[in-house]
Amino acid sequence: MTETPDPGTEADRLARVALTWLGEPGNRTVWQLVQAGGAEATLARLLRGDVPESALRTAVISRSAAGDPRRLAEIALRRTERLGARVVVPSDPEWPTTVDTLATLEVDGGGRINRDVRPPLCLWVRGGWPLDEAFARSVAVVGARAATNYGLHVTNDLAYGLAEREWTVVSGGAFGIDAAAHRAALSAGGLTVAVLACGVDRPYPMGNAAMFEQIADSGVLMSEWPPGSEPLRHRFLIRNRVIAAATAGTVLVEAAARSGAVQTMSRTIALNRRAMVVPGPVTSAMSVGCHELLRKYPETTLVTGLPHVLDEVGKIGEYLAEVPRGRERPHDSLDEESALVLEAVPRRGTAGPEELATKSGLGVRTVLRRLSLLEMAGLVVRRNDGVALVR
Amino acid sequence: MTETPDPGTEADRLARVALTWLGEPGNRTVWQLVQAGGAEATLARLLRGDVPESALRTAVISRSAAGDPRRLAEIALRRTERLGARVVVPSDPEWPTTVDTLATLEVDGGGRINRDVRPPLCLWVRGGWPLDEAFARSVAVVGARAATNYGLHVTNDLAYGLAEREWTVVSGGAFGIDAAAHRAALSAGGLTVAVLACGVDRPYPMGNAAMFEQIADSGVLMSEWPPGSEPLRHRFLIRNRVIAAATAGTVLVEAAARSGAVQTMSRTIALNRRAMVVPGPVTSAMSVGCHELLRKYPETTLVTGLPHVLDEVGKIGEYLAEVPRGRERPHDSLDEESALVLEAVPRRGTAGPEELATKSGLGVRTVLRRLSLLEMAGLVVRRNDGVALVR
Repeated sequence: MTETPDPGTEADRLARVALTWLGEPGNRTVWQLVQAGGAEATLARLLRGDVPESALRTAVISRSAAGDPRRLAEIALRRTERLGARVVVPSDPEWPTTVDTLATLEVDGGGRINRDVRPPLCLWVRGGWPLDEAFARSVAVVGARAATNYGLHVTNDLAYGLAEREWTVVSGGAFGIDAAAHRAALSAGGLTVAVLACGVDRPYPMGNAAMFEQIADSGVLMSEWPPGSEPLRHRFLIRNRVIAAATAGTVLVEAAARSGAVQTMSRTIALNRRAMVVPGPVTSAMSVGCHELLRKYPETTLVTGLPHVLDEVGKIGEYLAEVPRGRERPHDSLDEESALVLEAVPRRGTAGPEELATKSGLGVRTVLRRLSLLEMAGLVVRRNDGVALVR
Repeated sequence: MTETPDPGTEADRLARVALTWLGEPGNRTVWQLVQAGGAEATLARLLRGDVPESALRTAVISRSAAGDPRRLAEIALRRTERLGARVVVPSDPEWPTTVDTLATLEVDGGGRINRDVRPPLCLWVRGGWPLDEAFARSVAVVGARAATNYGLHVTNDLAYGLAEREWTVVSGGAFGIDAAAHRAALSAGGLTVAVLACGVDRPYPMGNAAMFEQIADSGVLMSEWPPGSEPLRHRFLIRNRVIAAATAGTVLVEAAARSGAVQTMSRTIALNRRAMVVPGPVTSAMSVGCHELLRKYPETTLVTGLPHVLDEVGKIGEYLAEVPRGRERPHDSLDEESALVLEAVPRRGTAGPEELATKSGLGVRTVLRRLSLLEMAGLVVRRNDGVALVR
């Protein structure tokens, strides 16, 4: 976040935002053109009507009628900034390169949601963690909205345990299993990422608003859609490919028969990520989809708890090798005083400057000065009732 | 049962009973000798002290000290007859030849229970059904004694459905899952076989005594041990190989961690029978063994209900080809009057002669005469309150 913006990168970023406005994320044609000629050239080409595919041509014409895409992209970028969010593009050091493996995903026909699974052009992000670090050790925990108490209980145990062991818990922010996964990670003081199918300014569903605020504070809210975007039905399936690609593996806790989870898990397998499924009572409708998957795909692994999940994601030597791990974490280079202050911040909850001074053995002024640096480094956050660890 | 006994077969039968007394069923050395030279020659050889293996030599000496094995075998045969039971040997037409596939089972070391898995020498049987017919379309449904309500419920549904579709339900007669499987088959009016690890005269456990009587009436009680034998602990594991070999497949409903079920299922797989496992809540100790199996053996199939089980045992073309199917069922050759009477007997419960006469349109005297024939053919059974179908 502290790099001076490169004007080339900024033009690329603007073009990617405009292209996202013109075609839905994952669009095969747009992605191929960007790969071949770059985002700016692609945008110019589409805007002069040179569109090599009819559905996209229609979309570009109708979207352009609503306003100049470059102008709208500038507005979207300013709006993003005002929200305290950012747009991350592939040339940014924090870009999670694992999502680029979506380029290898076999196209399996059957409608645009199955064909248009190319990597994101850019990502909207709220939250202090660089994306590459947030996803470096990450597991998705997903499942039914209409979860049972059994599913919620299992999810809580799994996600809490993963977070305690410093695995990032990734999910989709939905009611049921997703929310239970995020909440358990939060209560373990861990890092959690909600990958949304709408703008990061209006996370859906509204009923989870307080949870989303907590995630934005200590974790990451992420989306492929600009602020203000609606959570349209088809966007959830488009979004799911990013959850599958960005993580070391996906644990499915509960799913009804013929649920969308089957598609997510088949992509997880196709991307060579670990596909883990929790069984349940054969009498429960919410485990039917899980059992279907375990029967249908020999690549899925039945997991009954944290040790099985850790065992699976521990097998990801090849996967980890792809993840950029070069950048050092901010706190590796802290001066001694800052390190003492950071150590004094409680693992959960908040502390005031006086308390931190007492615990660190430093003066309150020193503590306040160091806290500003720590806050800029994204390691602590100021709240109404004191200072809290970001992670 | 109606064949005139062949004196050669009778001598063979006596020798096999004596050999069963000298060595536990499944004994590798005894079985090899019998294969090579026949049961009578093997018995003579062992009794003159020519025993090519030290553990067996010790057993033969200590058992022979208790009495002349030929004499004891004669007593055992007479006792069997008095019980209304019979001893079945491989030369009998009803011998279930599927158990002979145990000869192909790889010897996997690790103690005599794992080494001594050869086919039975003879089988004690109580119940009217010829063994080959009883096992021709059979599925084992087994599991934990300390079953949960969930396991009992799933077992009931499965076994009832199998019995309704004319699959024989085979199990071990134990408390919990086994008993639930037998009882469900009985209440569906189906055929069930209890394969015991003790004598057929004293089926274990005593708590299931009433159920065992019902099974003897309408199904089959079977054992490799002579009447009077105790259900010693190691005998259950020896017995389990027969359940695996005699059936088209085994469904494991519930099992605790590191249960004996794991060994049974690995043999089921080694014998190329279908190994089916019911999952359960990951929070249930009684499903831990099931999940272990599903994780460890890719050959196991997760099943959630009757359609999955039927799907698996429907795949047994090769297996069925091994089963002798030449002999016609008794009711295929019934005269018209007997067929009418048999048709009038209700599928469940009993009917008196008058009722049967009304339903069949025959006179009561004719009905009574035909009932005697049907009873001799093992198709109906007289109870205190009337006549019932055996199957």
